[in-house]
Amino acid sequence: MSGSLDYRAAGVDIEAADDAKERYRRLVESTRTPGAVGAFGSFGGLFRAPAGQQPLLVASADGVGTKIKVAIEAGRHDTIGHCLVNHCVNDILAQGAVPLFFLDYVAFGVLDPAVAEAIVSGVAAGCRENGCALIGGETAEMPGLYTPPDYDLAGFIVGTVEEAATLGPERVRVGDALLAFESTGLHTNGYSLARRIVRERMGLGVHDAFPGEGGATVAEVLLRIHRSYLPILRPHLGGIHAVAHITGGGLPGNLNRALPGTLDAVVDTGSWVVPNVFAQLARAGDVQRVVARSSRR
Amino acid sequence: MSGSLDYRAAGVDIEAADDAKERYRRLVESTRTPGAVGAFGSFGGLFRAPAGQQPLLVASADGVGTKIKVAIEAGRHDTIGHCLVNHCVNDILAQGAVPLFFLDYVAFGVLDPAVAEAIVSGVAAGCRENGCALIGGETAEMPGLYTPPDYDLAGFIVGTVEEAATLGPERVRVGDALLAFESTGLHTNGYSLARRIVRERMGLGVHDAFPGEGGATVAEVLLRIHRSYLPILRPHLGGIHAVAHITGGGLPGNLNRALPGTLDAVVDTGSWVVPNVFAQLARAGDVQRVVARSSRR
Repeated sequence: MSGSLDYRAAGVDIEAADDAKERYRRLVESTRTPGAVGAFGSFGGLFRAPAGQQPLLVASADGVGTKIKVAIEAGRHDTIGHCLVNHCVNDILAQGAVPLFFLDYVAFGVLDPAVAEAIVSGVAAGCRENGCALIGGETAEMPGLYTPPDYDLAGFIVGTVEEAATLGPERVRVGDALLAFESTGLHTNGYSLARRIVRERMGLGVHDAFPGEGGATVAEVLLRIHRSYLPILRPHLGGIHAVAHITGGGLPGNLNRALPGTLDAVVDTGSWVVPNVFAQLARAGDVQRVVARSSRR
Repeated sequence: MSGSLDYRAAGVDIEAADDAKERYRRLVESTRTPGAVGAFGSFGGLFRAPAGQQPLLVASADGVGTKIKVAIEAGRHDTIGHCLVNHCVNDILAQGAVPLFFLDYVAFGVLDPAVAEAIVSGVAAGCRENGCALIGGETAEMPGLYTPPDYDLAGFIVGTVEEAATLGPERVRVGDALLAFESTGLHTNGYSLARRIVRERMGLGVHDAFPGEGGATVAEVLLRIHRSYLPILRPHLGGIHAVAHITGGGLPGNLNRALPGTLDAVVDTGSWVVPNVFAQLARAGDVQRVVARSSRR
């Protein structure tokens, strides 16, 4: 083989990258908040530092796990970014922080600008829901690392809380009430297990109806958007001592992260109705109730 | 197939995740700076908001492209994170910002805690070099998305600059001098093309000697750490008008991002000695000099 080599010959399409970038512009602009300062396309995204007595920045990085494989298999790319933002919002809400801005990382084997636009449209929807400016991101084309049509998506949030208002274990007292808020489904954890159960035990594809969900498909049920708890908790942050975001590791892996070493929470697991999706997956996979601890740091 | 299914059966090893997290602890602590507030392992990382007249936050997200494939093929995982941090540091330096904190995202097909530790040790080394606190991150195990031993790595940085000291195109004046600083090699761009040239045109594997590099191997040459320009530029930020970080897209794709629409830069491409690695790759691949524009937003 001979002749001139360039990016395209090596599997990197600069025109596709430019196309994707242009598609992002209006999405990014749709998330603009008063704190956002810079113009679209600068090297770093600019945001005004929060004012206050002793403002803290609270940051979190996350992905959506193999929920992304459901999106890819179903060819529905416009909700996974919303899940990612809401997941990150909930993580910093555990310290009492409200969102300031967000950045995303999207990596493809072969960059498809329309898919990239759909992914970022979900990110932008999540940012608008939570009053969070999308101030930057990276779209990478990595031939040989991702097998088309696979891609991965990660996100990064920064929020703020007054130091004196920071929630956490040190504020929890004997006798505090424990309140739980319903999820919309699996949110963004447990998907490798759930997908295996659906495929191998229930014998279902992503476009088949999921049992007990009124005709909704497996994709529709498994892609339900990770709920942001910001709207329900924000008005009450002054009256809350600590928050646990129940992600990978479930209750055993996350609830204790919101408690001091000297206190335990008493959880009556009979006090709520288990949502259908969990009941179906647990039954089909014979999943034991307490298995996991957290991997999030 | 029947019996109880759990995370492990689905390819997600919670013990490996816990092991990785414990390995990160001392690395994270080694990067602690006065602004870092929270304890290791909280839901969000805490950092004191910068004080000043009109402080801005400057954020960037990035990956290392398929340089990661060189690290994986060479089995050398402890430098790629350093490249990532330095890349991000340079991105925000383009606005005159100095680093505050960093978060990483590492995703595996099968999580190897020792490899994860090596990756994050590079991230921590980069953070220490740049006075940047590693305040959080996410380690994901995503069976079916990444083919072992492949993994991906993304990073997010937040820095700060006084609004009045922000560098950028609007400060550039007719007659400004253009200064260039040498790279250590390919930094973190062009690897899909470079790897193809090395493999197909030069017929070399990662452990073979790279021509003209005094016996250094392909891996050693291609994994040279992306240089941080913070040490050389920091003392002079008050005398600089704009900075362009020359990444994907090269000079044509990045230099103009630091210039106003009304001005052009005159670049005498004969005024520097082309480093050996670029000369060798260009010759072997018959790479034309000006091809690429930027995909970074």
